[in-house]
Amino acid sequence: MNPQDHIQWIGDAQSGHLRLLDQTRLPTETAWLDCTTVVDVEQAIKRLSVRGAPAIGIAAAYGCVIAAQANTLDESIELLAASRPTAVNLTWALGRMKRCSANAPDTSSLLKEARRIHDEDRASCRAIGEHALALLRELTDDHLHLLTHCNAGALATGGIGTATAPMYVAHEQGLPLRVLADETRPLLQGSRLTAWELALAGIDVSIITDSMAAHVMQQGLVRAVITGADRIAANGDSANKIGTHTLAIVANHYRIPFIIAAPTSTIDLDAPDGQSIPIEQRAGQEITHGFGRPTAPEQARTYSPAFDITPASLITAIVTQHGVIRPIKPDVIAEHVHAPSA
Amino acid sequence: MNPQDHIQWIGDAQSGHLRLLDQTRLPTETAWLDCTTVVDVEQAIKRLSVRGAPAIGIAAAYGCVIAAQANTLDESIELLAASRPTAVNLTWALGRMKRCSANAPDTSSLLKEARRIHDEDRASCRAIGEHALALLRELTDDHLHLLTHCNAGALATGGIGTATAPMYVAHEQGLPLRVLADETRPLLQGSRLTAWELALAGIDVSIITDSMAAHVMQQGLVRAVITGADRIAANGDSANKIGTHTLAIVANHYRIPFIIAAPTSTIDLDAPDGQSIPIEQRAGQEITHGFGRPTAPEQARTYSPAFDITPASLITAIVTQHGVIRPIKPDVIAEHVHAPSA
Repeated sequence: MNPQDHIQWIGDAQSGHLRLLDQTRLPTETAWLDCTTVVDVEQAIKRLSVRGAPAIGIAAAYGCVIAAQANTLDESIELLAASRPTAVNLTWALGRMKRCSANAPDTSSLLKEARRIHDEDRASCRAIGEHALALLRELTDDHLHLLTHCNAGALATGGIGTATAPMYVAHEQGLPLRVLADETRPLLQGSRLTAWELALAGIDVSIITDSMAAHVMQQGLVRAVITGADRIAANGDSANKIGTHTLAIVANHYRIPFIIAAPTSTIDLDAPDGQSIPIEQRAGQEITHGFGRPTAPEQARTYSPAFDITPASLITAIVTQHGVIRPIKPDVIAEHVHAPSA
Repeated sequence: MNPQDHIQWIGDAQSGHLRLLDQTRLPTETAWLDCTTVVDVEQAIKRLSVRGAPAIGIAAAYGCVIAAQANTLDESIELLAASRPTAVNLTWALGRMKRCSANAPDTSSLLKEARRIHDEDRASCRAIGEHALALLRELTDDHLHLLTHCNAGALATGGIGTATAPMYVAHEQGLPLRVLADETRPLLQGSRLTAWELALAGIDVSIITDSMAAHVMQQGLVRAVITGADRIAANGDSANKIGTHTLAIVANHYRIPFIIAAPTSTIDLDAPDGQSIPIEQRAGQEITHGFGRPTAPEQARTYSPAFDITPASLITAIVTQHGVIRPIKPDVIAEHVHAPSA
């Protein structure tokens, strides 16, 4: 299969439904989830069957079509908005669907808008890939030895991913490329998803544990780090999968560029800084029983934030569909978001 | 059970054998391994049924008694020495057994020497605990909010551990104490072993994933980091479980003291610096199938060093049974090792 097809609308606007690749079953099984109710969509987002900031925005947009079929759009938007707190793309996509329904509340118009969000994200990924590749070629002097964290890949978006986008573009262009993928505990999105989709595309990818960051950088195996983001504050502080902040500090220590790739819908100008971004806490069982059997003592205490905040000062550049934000300063970010092309 | 009893000699010198708690089965099972041949001991070390630099030294010393029972001491010492390359305590303990056998090759003398190594390590752990606690109280202003990595605990030594020693001593003294334990991928010695033994002792311990280091430090939840070491070079560069170097960089970024606790037998004055310490590579399966089921795509490539090297410049102090080494400079280290008390 093509990982880019992981979100599909099946059927027409009036009676169709949302089909999602169940990412909790990868890489060992390719199983599909058919969501025919809004609760199905909400549960799929909560359970991380679909995850990644842009992808949950797209899934929630299709969820609105299902809601409109059942005449429950307003309450459904609230339900979907609360399914995960950190990614701002979810709020952004639901806002678009709400404005669309204010003009044309029929399911056909809503399906058109959801498809537009999906298609725009696909184009956005491609543009991010081109801008990010140009930047990475410059910063690494064409030594594309990249480290990424979690999955900001096709499986997290409607297209070729955000952090992975320059990898797909480089590979299409036949450029030599080596990727290290952090496995990304607790839910292993790096080893289960990123390694899966990059290997499927024929890209040279090796899995490391998250803790190996300093060692691989010390050994000279990394020329740039690139990750996605779940929400970027007005000052550039960025929320992303837990571990990103650790990685940014280590990259900084070794003077290795640390890049974030995300569409402008990830930038939340209403959040002045990282402290105003809510951090989702996940169940401790994801740490103590993450692999289907206990890996910690009974009743072990845990602490399990799903995201962390990387301060703007550690970020070399943010790449969006419109180009490169650099340096990471509030005015540069605001100008980028408000530019005519944006 | 008392985790300190994880290494036991059963029976007399002539026909007795080594009994080890099989640490690969913790925390869900308390299973014992009876080693009656040197190959049993070598396999137990390789498989990590017994692990931790001081503990493998002790196990190998008892292994020499088994070797002497079978009249295979010389070749057995070579076999045991090759079982794991990074920890220098193994070579050190085997050197002592060899010198002992040169004087008195009978099994009784060898068993006495092995017991002496074991007892000395127990006393060493206690002394490390007292020195390290005094240092930690000073550095944290009595806010004993500690982060540790891997297991440098009772299960890694003949006593109350090295990095955990000040925790046990503080707990005995009724001092308030909070410990965060890195789970320590790939083999989870932190969640499986450290969380197990500290909780058993009634110490307040919570498990985090390795990647959370920066987040918990940013949140002010850590006042000092303390780990063990597998080998410390003459200049203070220290080999320890993969991830230690990452942790040291992050602690440094947040100006949090980073302490190493280890007996002087861990210091290898013959290794001028970290580059001269061999780093063991482990099988990729420990990353891709670490929990009994695949967590990565089939034939995924991996990179799996078992240890990393933390440069001396990132280490605030090294605590041995003889006291505190600080600052970490070659002459200070050499003087400490050669001091009359050492």
